[in-house]
Order: sequence, then C-alpha cells, then structure tokens
Amino acid sequence: MMIEGRQQRSIWYEARAGEVCVIDQTRLPHEFAVYRLQTLEDACEAITSMRVRGAPLIGVTAAFGVYLALRENPDSLETAVKRLRATRPTAVNLRWALDRAVRELSEQKPAGAAGNALEFALALAEEDAACCEAIGGHGGEVLRRLWQERCAQDRPLRVLAHCNAGALATVCWGTALAAVYKAAGAGVPLQVWVNETRPRNQGGALTCWELRRAGIDHNLIVDGAAGHVMASGLVDACITGSDRVSASGDVCNKIGTYQVALAARDNNLPFYAALPVSTIDFDWPSADEAIPIEERAAEEISVTSGIEAGGRETRVRQYPEETVVRNFAFDVTPARLVSGIITEHGVFDANRNSLAALAGAQLSPSDP
Amino acid sequence: MMIEGRQQRSIWYEARAGEVCVIDQTRLPHEFAVYRLQTLEDACEAITSMRVRGAPLIGVTAAFGVYLALRENPDSLETAVKRLRATRPTAVNLRWALDRAVRELSEQKPAGAAGNALEFALALAEEDAACCEAIGGHGGEVLRRLWQERCAQDRPLRVLAHCNAGALATVCWGTALAAVYKAAGAGVPLQVWVNETRPRNQGGALTCWELRRAGIDHNLIVDGAAGHVMASGLVDACITGSDRVSASGDVCNKIGTYQVALAARDNNLPFYAALPVSTIDFDWPSADEAIPIEERAAEEISVTSGIEAGGRETRVRQYPEETVVRNFAFDVTPARLVSGIITEHGVFDANRNSLAALAGAQLSPSDP
Repeated sequence: MMIEGRQQRSIWYEARAGEVCVIDQTRLPHEFAVYRLQTLEDACEAITSMRVRGAPLIGVTAAFGVYLALRENPDSLETAVKRLRATRPTAVNLRWALDRAVRELSEQKPAGAAGNALEFALALAEEDAACCEAIGGHGGEVLRRLWQERCAQDRPLRVLAHCNAGALATVCWGTALAAVYKAAGAGVPLQVWVNETRPRNQGGALTCWELRRAGIDHNLIVDGAAGHVMASGLVDACITGSDRVSASGDVCNKIGTYQVALAARDNNLPFYAALPVSTIDFDWPSADEAIPIEERAAEEISVTSGIEAGGRETRVRQYPEETVVRNFAFDVTPARLVSGIITEHGVFDANRNSLAALAGAQLSPSDP
Repeated sequence: MMIEGRQQRSIWYEARAGEVCVIDQTRLPHEFAVYRLQTLEDACEAITSMRVRGAPLIGVTAAFGVYLALRENPDSLETAVKRLRATRPTAVNLRWALDRAVRELSEQKPAGAAGNALEFALALAEEDAACCEAIGGHGGEVLRRLWQERCAQDRPLRVLAHCNAGALATVCWGTALAAVYKAAGAGVPLQVWVNETRPRNQGGALTCWELRRAGIDHNLIVDGAAGHVMASGLVDACITGSDRVSASGDVCNKIGTYQVALAARDNNLPFYAALPVSTIDFDWPSADEAIPIEERAAEEISVTSGIEAGGRETRVRQYPEETVVRNFAFDVTPARLVSGIITEHGVFDANRNSLAALAGAQLSPSDP
C-alpha cells in the first residue's frame, strides 16, 4: 500500500538495526506507528496482542519469530516453534509457515541456523507478496466480470467486505482487498460496504484506513446492517478472506462471516473467499468436524479505545466488569454458501473435488 | 422491574411536581438516572436522543408529550402531534398512540384538554403494562413448551435476544423479555445469549442490565457471533421485539434482526417476535413495499462513551471524522423467517390470514 507516497509493506526487515519491523495495527486508525521486534517474545506478543493479524501476515511474522529465536540461541528451533504455534489457535497459515520453517531448518547445522532462518523468512515474505498479487489478479477478474454482468458498466460495482483482508492482513496487497485493488486498477469503478467487525473493529479501523489511502469509495456500516444493505439492493457481491479452509471448502474466518454469507445467499448474491492456498487445511475434512475456535478476552468487547475531543487517547469501559462476555473470534461458513475460493492459482469451487487439485500446490512455492 | 427492592417502571407521572419521569436510558448501564420531562420539547428530545426508546415506550412517552404540550397551550394538539410524530419515523406505535390521542382529545373543549390528555396518557401507560404482561404470559408459555420439547427439562432453555425488548422498552415487563421473565417465574431455567446490538449497544448496555437485576443467567456476544453460537448448538430459540409488523407478518426491528432470523432458519431454530398488537401496521401490506427506515447520525457508530479506569465518564472517537458512515437503524425480517408473532392476544402465524384476526383488536383496549 502507499503511505506518504511510498510503497509500504506490513512487515519488513531492517538489516542495519537487525530488527523486524511491523506496522502496529493496534494503533490504527489513529496513528501510523512502526513496531520493532527484537526477540522471539516480541514476535509472540505482537501476534497475540494483534499488533499483527491476518492469517498470511501471522505466518510471515512467525517465520521472522523463528529467526529472532535462533539469533539468540541457534538450538532453540523446537521451543521457538512450539511457543509461536501457541499464539493463536485458529489461523492455519501460522502452522503452515512453522511446518515449512522446521522442514527447511531442522537439517541445518546450528552454526548457520539464524542466517538460514532469516533467509527463509525473507523468502516467505516475498512469496506472500507475489501470492497475494496473484490472488488479486484472479479476484480482480471475478469482480470485473461481475461488474460487466450486473452493472451494465454504468454504475460502480458494490462489494461488501468483512474484517480486514487487505494489505494489512498480509505482507502487501491483501487477499479480498487485493481483488478490489486489482479491479480498481483495471478501471472497474467500485464502492465498498465495510462491516465494522466487532469486537476489534478491523473493518472500521483498518479496512476503511486502507481504502481511503487507495482512494476507493467506501461506507462503514455496523455488522448487523450487512443483511439490510443486501436486501435493499445495494450490494452486488461479498468477498472476505479466511483463516482456515477445510478440504471441502468450508471457510473459517472472522466472527460474523457466516452471517454475511447467509445474507448473500438469501439475496442471491455471490459470496467469495480469497486466500492463499496455504490457508487450506487438508487435514480438516469438513465443517462437520470441529476445529479450535479461539475465544479471546472479554475486555475486547467490554473496553474500547479512542480519542477524546481534546485529542487525548484513552480506553473506556462500555459494560460493567460483572458482565459475562463470550468472545468467539471466528466462525465457519459452510461450503454450500460459498460461490468460489479465489487463490493464487485461480478460482475454485468450494468442494472437495475442486480443491483437491490444490493439495500439491501447497508444498511448492506459489506460481503466480 | 425491581430496582433497589421496589417495582420500577420506565415512565411515570409525579403529580406533586407535575413532571413526567423516565429512566434516562442513555445513562445505563453506568448510572441509574431519572430524567424529568416538563415540556413538549423535553419529550421530543427524550425520544430523539433515545433517553427513552423501544416502540411501546415511545408511544406512551408521546402521549405524555401531548399532555405536556396542552398544559402549556390547550390549543396546540395539532402542532404537538405533528412535532412528536416527526421524532422517529419507523416505530409505528408512536403514530398509533398519537392517532388515538387525537381521536380522544380533538372533540374536547380546550378548557379540559390538558387534564384529559393526562388521563389518556396514564391510561395508555396502564394499558401497555397490562398488555406486556399478557405478551409475557403467551410468550412464556411458548418458551416453557420449547423447554419441555428441546431440553428434556434437564438443562436450561437457551434463548438468543437482540437489542432490548425488555422492561426498558415498554412501561414495564417488556415484550420479548416479558416472555423470558414469565417463563423464569414459571420455573423454566433459562440462559440468554445477548447480542450487543451495535451501534447503540442496547443489548450490552440495557438487556444485560435488566437480566442481571432479574437474576437470569446471560452472556453477552457481539452481533456477528449470533450465527456461530446457533451453529455450535448453543441456542434453542430466538426472540426479539419489533418496531413495526406488516399485515403479512414481516418484522421491522432493530438493525441486525434479519441476520438473526436467517441464522435461526439455517439452524432449524424457531425465531419469534413479541409485540403489542399496536405494533402491527395494517397499512403496510408486506415487505415488498418499502417503509421509512430511519438513518441516524454517524457519531452513533464513530463515537462511543464509557468509563475510564479512574471512574471518569467520557466519549471517545473510534474512527476518524472523515470516515463515511451509513447508520441504518432498522431492518425488515421477511415473514417466511418468522415462526410466530407473540401478542397480548396469543401467538399468531406470520401471515396475512392469521394476523387479520387482530385488525379489530387494535382499536379497542387490549384484553389480556
């Protein structure tokens, strides 16, 4: 994404300082702040506290976390991987990136371990960038065709997005928003309905921030309003990212996604999920089998931060401490509600047969 | 509801001071504060700013507003009604209460106008209280039967509620929550999932407050999680209030209700709306015909209030001022998704034939 006139990634390595840098997403939209990771614990904290979030970016951050661990102790691969794996239970890209790191690094001699780990992390970041650009290419083409079919080219294509599956959720480009960016670049006029995405407001805080910088027309709505805008004839298509896709095409994603897909189906609108193939968990046969759904702290719902009229930032409690809160972070959208899975290798039907073609693609570098 | 050991209504008249008193619902859950209405403008402001909200309570407040207007100027019936009618466009009880006030009062001589208006408002408040208790009786019986059928009586009935359709939305008892209170009173163990209900958080702020005072087990979730808890097998039934029901049984209610109903249908769960017959708009044939859906200020979404760690209350901006927000306050749930309409006269199927039986009941006082 472009920040102050230059291309900005969500994670990068500053060789001179020996630091891994990330955009601190807990500071947005109020402040653009760079956060520096120097140790394994820094990386774990950044993932757990959601300074970095988004399945692909979590995977790349974990790879850098392995480097930071091996830099301190070349023999710590196993413990580092275990520690990083525990940071967030649902996103499968984390596991995938760590599995790859183990394959790449476990045979190495400790002497060169840190250097190899850095090389692996940098390569993974490049791979993610290329992969997301390819997702954007295929997704952008989906949107361009929908625009031709639905809008008679005389009005913008109206897309509904949930959570943030943009550049901030990946190294750059994004997944769902990569499709939006590529379609916009190809001359498709777009208007994006942005679901706020409680409790952490990734839609209101991050997606709106990204779209404003990209100059793409958008409107923020509360999560409960998605069905209403669809039923009012104000939406042409829905597109989200994903944290884990089953071998059958069920889409685990940020809480609220399932309801978006239900409303899309009820209004005969297409619902797409855009994701790298690394998000597909071929060990998860289908939604019939439960996967761990992360439950996060009650404070994410009960306490909100923002800026007072005078400009001071503060945190306020909306609900009393005694309020019993359940904070489920993800839900599962059954494959029957999914119009297509947009990947770096093209668009696939959300079923076992179609996705099986991708099982081999997961182990090799993406081929955009 | 019980507050500090005594029965508390949401609106009442203090004869000695000549004031109409309401619970200021914008102060909850942090503070229980009584707000006093002395003029027509006070009443209008209380409705517009949502110090009082909930379709039935808005209707009763409007009737008191007519009294406050006529007390100042006995000739002001027409202007007062016009002013009050404009406060909120979607809730039909407001129009219904004002139409009744006009019928009752327009033939009167100005001399006794204020006294008659007060008498009318007090009678309407009593009627609403009796009506809601009757809704609770019928709704409570629905829940008791669901408990017998679904829970084999060995676990609580798990009910999902959206917004606040409790005592605070009416003079007392509530509509959807009246069913919960009556079922609990009849010995049905209950657990309520409370949708937060962005942007004004009536679920998190008001329903949780009410349920805690009533000693009913409940859990707050974000609106996007309703589908997930249903799909996870944690819900037995959904029940909401309504602001306007079509002659065909379509349910206009707080934004997000449609998505609750969609998720209920997808999980084979019953979805009920509970409301006084005065909420049915027989002039609204069906959802095919649009009704005015109130759009409220962007600040309701962008700015949140709460309590800082030190105890100070403040308002914080979550999203920058340039964020373009659309704040739709209501949506329409089509009748095909509604399992039943619970009224003071019993439970009716959500279709034209069934509801037609109630057309006559609207003009006469409810007969609980």
